[in-house]
Amino acid sequence: MALSNDFIAEITSVADACAEAAARETLAWFRSSGLDVDDKSAVNAFDPVTEGDRAAEAAIRAVLGKARPQDAILGEEEAATAGTSGYSWVIDPIDGTRAFVAGAPTWGTLIAFSEESGPLYGILDQPYIGERFCGGFGQATLRGPHGTRNLATRRTTSLDEAILFSTFPEIGRPAERAAFEAVARQVKLTRYGLDCYAYGLIAMGLSDLVIEAGLQPYDIQAPIALVEAAGGIVTNWEGGPAHGGGRAVAAATPELHAAALDALASAVSDG
Amino acid sequence: MALSNDFIAEITSVADACAEAAARETLAWFRSSGLDVDDKSAVNAFDPVTEGDRAAEAAIRAVLGKARPQDAILGEEEAATAGTSGYSWVIDPIDGTRAFVAGAPTWGTLIAFSEESGPLYGILDQPYIGERFCGGFGQATLRGPHGTRNLATRRTTSLDEAILFSTFPEIGRPAERAAFEAVARQVKLTRYGLDCYAYGLIAMGLSDLVIEAGLQPYDIQAPIALVEAAGGIVTNWEGGPAHGGGRAVAAATPELHAAALDALASAVSDG
Repeated sequence: MALSNDFIAEITSVADACAEAAARETLAWFRSSGLDVDDKSAVNAFDPVTEGDRAAEAAIRAVLGKARPQDAILGEEEAATAGTSGYSWVIDPIDGTRAFVAGAPTWGTLIAFSEESGPLYGILDQPYIGERFCGGFGQATLRGPHGTRNLATRRTTSLDEAILFSTFPEIGRPAERAAFEAVARQVKLTRYGLDCYAYGLIAMGLSDLVIEAGLQPYDIQAPIALVEAAGGIVTNWEGGPAHGGGRAVAAATPELHAAALDALASAVSDG
Repeated sequence: MALSNDFIAEITSVADACAEAAARETLAWFRSSGLDVDDKSAVNAFDPVTEGDRAAEAAIRAVLGKARPQDAILGEEEAATAGTSGYSWVIDPIDGTRAFVAGAPTWGTLIAFSEESGPLYGILDQPYIGERFCGGFGQATLRGPHGTRNLATRRTTSLDEAILFSTFPEIGRPAERAAFEAVARQVKLTRYGLDCYAYGLIAMGLSDLVIEAGLQPYDIQAPIALVEAAGGIVTNWEGGPAHGGGRAVAAATPELHAAALDALASAVSDG
């Protein structure tokens, strides 16, 4: 069933309101001194949670509680809440907490509107720079400090032409890291450390490939909606749905995506 | 001899004019399609030069040719030009060309005003975000999209409290990389890929350490002026002057700087 224009307008407007509510909280904490950073887990790698993260998720939940109480919410910071509509909001108030803590403006607020089978609409918001990437319902746009543009992935089809982004070498199990490195050796350029922002670069047609592992659903659902609305493709490392989290490959074109999956599979079977 | 206020006002104003002239050129090319990227060297690692890089250096040289014809110019793109004043402008129109090519807003325009013994004043400009870090003549400031602030490094004194940035693992010889990794194992958090922007994070008091190798004078002179004006310290890996390029360590405090030099030296002597 096609979604009505009124419904689409409502959802995109609520998503914008969520991003704006989150931005008020994140910007109050970004680059402030005395940021209260603690380790979410003493076992895993460094994973700071900031007051900004918690405050931004609370702010988003307040918006949704008023505007869309019938929808479920899955967020990073609080327990999931159930809904009755069949739709979910899947949110990461600060994706890239390590960048946030270090003062780098490459973190983002991720907001996805999803059904069971995957995300329908996603926002990647970088409020310090003033950039909002939106994708879904047949549109992909960037609103930023130098204007608004429609987004489309570029036509890169082979690994040796591709620019690859990843949060590796910082995440992933050894076998995953080895598989990633097998792909990295074949691409034109590998860059690190941008977290969700790298998906925006694919949607803009400036980069070609993101490979990650260890993702949560809220890390990847908004990027899936954005990259796919811009003409790209996002799956797990085996070519199946990625919206459940885990390992993801985002590519500018189906050809490049197939080449990346092949390279990852070869590395895994060699290992 | 103390420099006059008029002289300082002239130099800071000319430096601003250089940054603005460069920004007009870089922003015309940043994220444009059809960026004409070529390899400056087939032998070394990937090192794209963009039309924006060339155009921005020409624009800076045009400003300096009118305003300060008596000063020497050392830039990345064109041959050095001699002066008669004893002062030099040391400029990198786009530091972080790989970030630029990939669409990431973490490159910067570096402009230093220097004497033989080192830089007196430096600008790190990120015109897409609209941020200008300025340091020297007793002041360090950031003008950005959310206002202007004075900059000061924070009081981190030990490696285990420090956030470290580097362009490693992408640059450096194997022995340099091993020494870097010895330090990286001792810090709280290591981040990659920000190029010159990482020096701005130290000056803001949000990160603590940058370790790099293979630098040119124009990569490091503006960062030296900025970080030192904010209270930090920048030397080569042996504790000597870094403004000639090569290997550099920038640290928030003298204590942290000493700890980083010790760790680098131990790794080199073990290797």
